[in-house]
Amino acid sequence: MPLSYAIIGTGAIGGYYGARLQQAGAQVHFLLRSDYEQVRDRGIKIDSTDGDFTLPKVNAYLNAEDIPPVDVVVVALKTTQNHLLKNLLPKIKSNGAILSLQNGLGVEADIVQQIEATSSQSTSSRSTSPQSTDVQTTASQTTILGGLCFICSNKVGPGHIRHLDYGKVLLGAHQRQHQRCPPTPLMQRIAADFTRAKIAIDMTDDLPMARWRKLVWNVPYNGLSVVLNATTEEMMAHQEVRQLITVLMQEVVMLANAWGKSVSPSSVSPSSVSPNSERTLPPEVINQMLTQTEQMSPYRTSMKIDYDEGRSLELNAILGNPLQVADRLNIQVPAIRMLYQQLAFLNDRNILLPK
Amino acid sequence: MPLSYAIIGTGAIGGYYGARLQQAGAQVHFLLRSDYEQVRDRGIKIDSTDGDFTLPKVNAYLNAEDIPPVDVVVVALKTTQNHLLKNLLPKIKSNGAILSLQNGLGVEADIVQQIEATSSQSTSSRSTSPQSTDVQTTASQTTILGGLCFICSNKVGPGHIRHLDYGKVLLGAHQRQHQRCPPTPLMQRIAADFTRAKIAIDMTDDLPMARWRKLVWNVPYNGLSVVLNATTEEMMAHQEVRQLITVLMQEVVMLANAWGKSVSPSSVSPSSVSPNSERTLPPEVINQMLTQTEQMSPYRTSMKIDYDEGRSLELNAILGNPLQVADRLNIQVPAIRMLYQQLAFLNDRNILLPK
Repeated sequence: MPLSYAIIGTGAIGGYYGARLQQAGAQVHFLLRSDYEQVRDRGIKIDSTDGDFTLPKVNAYLNAEDIPPVDVVVVALKTTQNHLLKNLLPKIKSNGAILSLQNGLGVEADIVQQIEATSSQSTSSRSTSPQSTDVQTTASQTTILGGLCFICSNKVGPGHIRHLDYGKVLLGAHQRQHQRCPPTPLMQRIAADFTRAKIAIDMTDDLPMARWRKLVWNVPYNGLSVVLNATTEEMMAHQEVRQLITVLMQEVVMLANAWGKSVSPSSVSPSSVSPNSERTLPPEVINQMLTQTEQMSPYRTSMKIDYDEGRSLELNAILGNPLQVADRLNIQVPAIRMLYQQLAFLNDRNILLPK
Repeated sequence: MPLSYAIIGTGAIGGYYGARLQQAGAQVHFLLRSDYEQVRDRGIKIDSTDGDFTLPKVNAYLNAEDIPPVDVVVVALKTTQNHLLKNLLPKIKSNGAILSLQNGLGVEADIVQQIEATSSQSTSSRSTSPQSTDVQTTASQTTILGGLCFICSNKVGPGHIRHLDYGKVLLGAHQRQHQRCPPTPLMQRIAADFTRAKIAIDMTDDLPMARWRKLVWNVPYNGLSVVLNATTEEMMAHQEVRQLITVLMQEVVMLANAWGKSVSPSSVSPSSVSPNSERTLPPEVINQMLTQTEQMSPYRTSMKIDYDEGRSLELNAILGNPLQVADRLNIQVPAIRMLYQQLAFLNDRNILLPK
């Protein structure tokens, strides 16, 4: 039997995956803001390269506290909205989890902070609730999972998502000390639900390293697409930009590997993972990504879409948090830093402009 | 008695300084292209914070060979036009000079290449000319001077220049081995003409180091103004961009000083210059320029003006040639390199767009 899900942030990512899960029989609850009335009255419409469909009736909510306790709370907000999260989290059944389907580094740690804030609210105000026995009440209980989404989708209207390409999810468990962690029974059940919903899904025992690997793509392409006002195709066709992309990728790989070394082997947990197996990105990852990107159809990155639509850029998750790691480990990453500085300027000016 | 001048490139720089020189009594010849008929028929109009004036009648030319031999050929083309120079140089009287009023590094060496090409033409085709006794016929004879222009001026229409601010010229002599060189009698006469023409002028015995010093400003502000689509004021007001400007300035200062060290002391010429005096930029130059720029009125840089008007950027003179020095000396300048790569992309796309 499928798990129950709450989707926090019913946009290009949450709307698509949530709708797929409901279509496959899972109980799904959608938290909405601007699209609430439309979705409550007319449901969700998906245009997808894997088959169009409409869900005429969905469970739509304006307030998280109206959502019944679920097994999995899917956080699909932009990371720039995470500061709002402590007021957007519904109750989680015991043995349930929060699953972040977000971009970048440090997003799970962000969520931990938010649920700690929520948990302290609960302890003071909800401790007499009759439901308190079957729901989680302390932050330390809560399992945090992360899912990396390799997908190209947009929200094209209220309750209307267009899925353009790809869609695979890579699922891993967050550990407070960044240890590796093999797939848990809960992760297996989530993977089964996603598979049933026609979403390709893989699991990793090293979520942080998977996030670093995705940054090898996201840092150069997301960042430069905004600074240069360019698609992936335009960037790949230009010799100097291609060189710059390579330099940025090299810096991310170097930083990832320095981070991998810095994580103490003694913190590696459970026994099925060899404590000595290296946590590194191989240098080949760079040429693989360059080649893959050349073969993609011309692509407007998610950061460019955010920029064009006047939304805040996911600057901290994609560039700022890696830079904090660089500072902590005393690693020089001049190209990432310069890209961050340029994007900070463009972002600050962009969100001040009238929409 | 004033010297005679030919102005090659009658735009914001050449038009302004040439008109000032003629106004003060010098014989000036203007080489023109698109503005030729207008200037021949109606002269040159200057709107200037130091006083407006019009020269109703000027010596206007479409072909360099129609210009009589002059004492000083002023090259005021954009450096991106220097490849055309070998067909744009009039004859120079013996003891005369070419004076480059151009931006960036390596522009004098560029001119030497061009006159060598011109000279080999002359030797083959003009050696029987009756004027050949009082004009220079070999490139090695030709004195090359450089003038750094600290000026804010624009061409606002055919034969119509607007001088907005500043205007000072710093004059130095180019030496084939980059030696220092104290002011020559010819430079003294040029300085006297400029002074008479109400143009503030100073002289330097170290033209290359003066060019490096100017790059400390030009690299960050010209480059970032295009990438970030911003005025000096907007950039200075943003903390991250201010940091990035500082990093770029540090790289230019480091590179300049490495270059200064690399120039062998034995190549220092004439005796009035101490062979051991250091050729370095002091670190204070960075804070001085930051402070000065903050005090300037909001300023659209020359590279931004070129970009906005769809002209080629002076990429090699301002960034590419310094990068070649960095490569030769094996100095890492990651921020300058990244800026160059970004600008190369923007420039290539910009000049392909319909004007």
